[in-house]
Amino acid sequence: MRIVVLAGGIGGARFLRGLKAAAPDADVTVIGNTGDDIHLFGLKVCPDLDTVMYTLGGGINEEQGWGRTDETFRVKEELAAYGVGPDWFGLGDRDFATHIVRTQMLSAGYPLSAVTEALCARWKPGVRLLPMSDDRVETHVAVDDEGERRAIHFQEYWVRLRASVPAHAVVPVGADQAKPAPGVLEAIAEADVVLFPPSNPVVSIGTILAVPGIREAIADAGVPVVGLSPIVGDAPVRGMADKVLAAVGVESTAAAVAQHYGSGLLDGWLVDSVDEAAVAEVEAAGIRCRAVPLMMTDVDATAAMVREALALAEEVRA
Amino acid sequence: MRIVVLAGGIGGARFLRGLKAAAPDADVTVIGNTGDDIHLFGLKVCPDLDTVMYTLGGGINEEQGWGRTDETFRVKEELAAYGVGPDWFGLGDRDFATHIVRTQMLSAGYPLSAVTEALCARWKPGVRLLPMSDDRVETHVAVDDEGERRAIHFQEYWVRLRASVPAHAVVPVGADQAKPAPGVLEAIAEADVVLFPPSNPVVSIGTILAVPGIREAIADAGVPVVGLSPIVGDAPVRGMADKVLAAVGVESTAAAVAQHYGSGLLDGWLVDSVDEAAVAEVEAAGIRCRAVPLMMTDVDATAAMVREALALAEEVRA
Repeated sequence: MRIVVLAGGIGGARFLRGLKAAAPDADVTVIGNTGDDIHLFGLKVCPDLDTVMYTLGGGINEEQGWGRTDETFRVKEELAAYGVGPDWFGLGDRDFATHIVRTQMLSAGYPLSAVTEALCARWKPGVRLLPMSDDRVETHVAVDDEGERRAIHFQEYWVRLRASVPAHAVVPVGADQAKPAPGVLEAIAEADVVLFPPSNPVVSIGTILAVPGIREAIADAGVPVVGLSPIVGDAPVRGMADKVLAAVGVESTAAAVAQHYGSGLLDGWLVDSVDEAAVAEVEAAGIRCRAVPLMMTDVDATAAMVREALALAEEVRA
Repeated sequence: MRIVVLAGGIGGARFLRGLKAAAPDADVTVIGNTGDDIHLFGLKVCPDLDTVMYTLGGGINEEQGWGRTDETFRVKEELAAYGVGPDWFGLGDRDFATHIVRTQMLSAGYPLSAVTEALCARWKPGVRLLPMSDDRVETHVAVDDEGERRAIHFQEYWVRLRASVPAHAVVPVGADQAKPAPGVLEAIAEADVVLFPPSNPVVSIGTILAVPGIREAIADAGVPVVGLSPIVGDAPVRGMADKVLAAVGVESTAAAVAQHYGSGLLDGWLVDSVDEAAVAEVEAAGIRCRAVPLMMTDVDATAAMVREALALAEEVRA
């Protein structure tokens, strides 16, 4: 079975670990969000791609969900001693090596997709990890800053400000000019099923869908497209999805997120058991829906979610 | 007193520490060799400038004479795990930060001289440290490799091969097109004395002198130019100066090195007490010479050497 998964960072990565457990023989292609990529200290950092790569490759810091395990911060301390910032983004020494290799390869002319493949040759994530695009896309968030509205990098909003101020708009700058990375449209066209993990529907999956051609390819693939709600009981399971949902005028409910994707794209939707009441609303919108436990507490629980999603896909197909 | 010092790496840095002890009120400008700079992992590494900066700024690894104290090698280990080399150049985590800051500033358009000044704002070396040039100069060494003569980067010769194969030529590639960095010629013109520490006469001081204008400025400054022999008893005190001296056809003796610089450039020369016999030969070549202890065993011994050099300079001036 060929499965395409659109993935953000932590949620997407944990979902993929469950997918590998639930369907070890599946041929999985992951289309990773690159909208939150950022240049720090002259180095290209791809937080979502790395989180997927480290998580599936056994190098992730399990507690925090991002960054390397057994990490140290000598380089960062030295950069601070030089007075060079920013200091709010946690780059560890082991993690730095990834960004150094990536930046060197990009400078040598390799596209991000080729660089990602090269990095994965070490990590062996067991999936084919593709960036959504080799072109630069950068998610900006419009916030009010001392009376002025200005656009800041998503990471500044998310990591530095911890989404503590209202987001008035979320714009994937450059997405309209970006092309899907090599292999992305082919993987979608050849997929047996497309899955949306419980990732952020705006800044993760939404950004991937903003690359011209990807949404259309998924809608036209003629295979089941099934998503899992990142909202459980009217609040994000993790992260701050509610803040950016508000920016795009979407309620923080499992049903509203499904309708935000829309029945033209989404065939099936899983909500958490506590959101049983949302099932009828989602189905009324033309999206098949089931209520099942959606907490990724461990790999087994996540694998069970994946099995529910694949079962729903088969139901859609039948 | 305004003193200009041409410096390589370890020997130059230790000499400068002695100079600061011997002449704490002197206004010292250091013209640093950049011919052994190297790009590693996409980062610009300036070993000699950093050795001077770290040594005078209190951050040097005292035992090895280069690199940072209390160093770790997490980044390097990770790069090796990615299969990215070279693995023979020892870059530590704290050291990496210096190269990251430097590379980022260079990419932003700052010349190396401005970058060096910015780095020194942290280290406060107590001297003005100038790269010999903002232009790229790269010392190459011609060696025989499986029957073919090829040119390799000086660091590959020095660090990877440990100068274990004959050097047929030493060429500071790009030096002929390089311009002295801002401040270099001015510092020489305003100097009261110019000192050549017991640095490598070919790949350190020789490279600096190969930048058009620098040798001429020193020769024309009309102030005493005094050097200290890096050869003691027919062998280099440290390093492998004999290997590169052979490549330029100069004997590894204190007297031969003085004559290699020449009386057109050098006014005074200190040889070690064990080379007392060389004094007459050097003086016969028109260079005033004294035999004194030349082992930089500690700061006091080095300061005594500096005082001898400054005394010889005054003798020349008188």
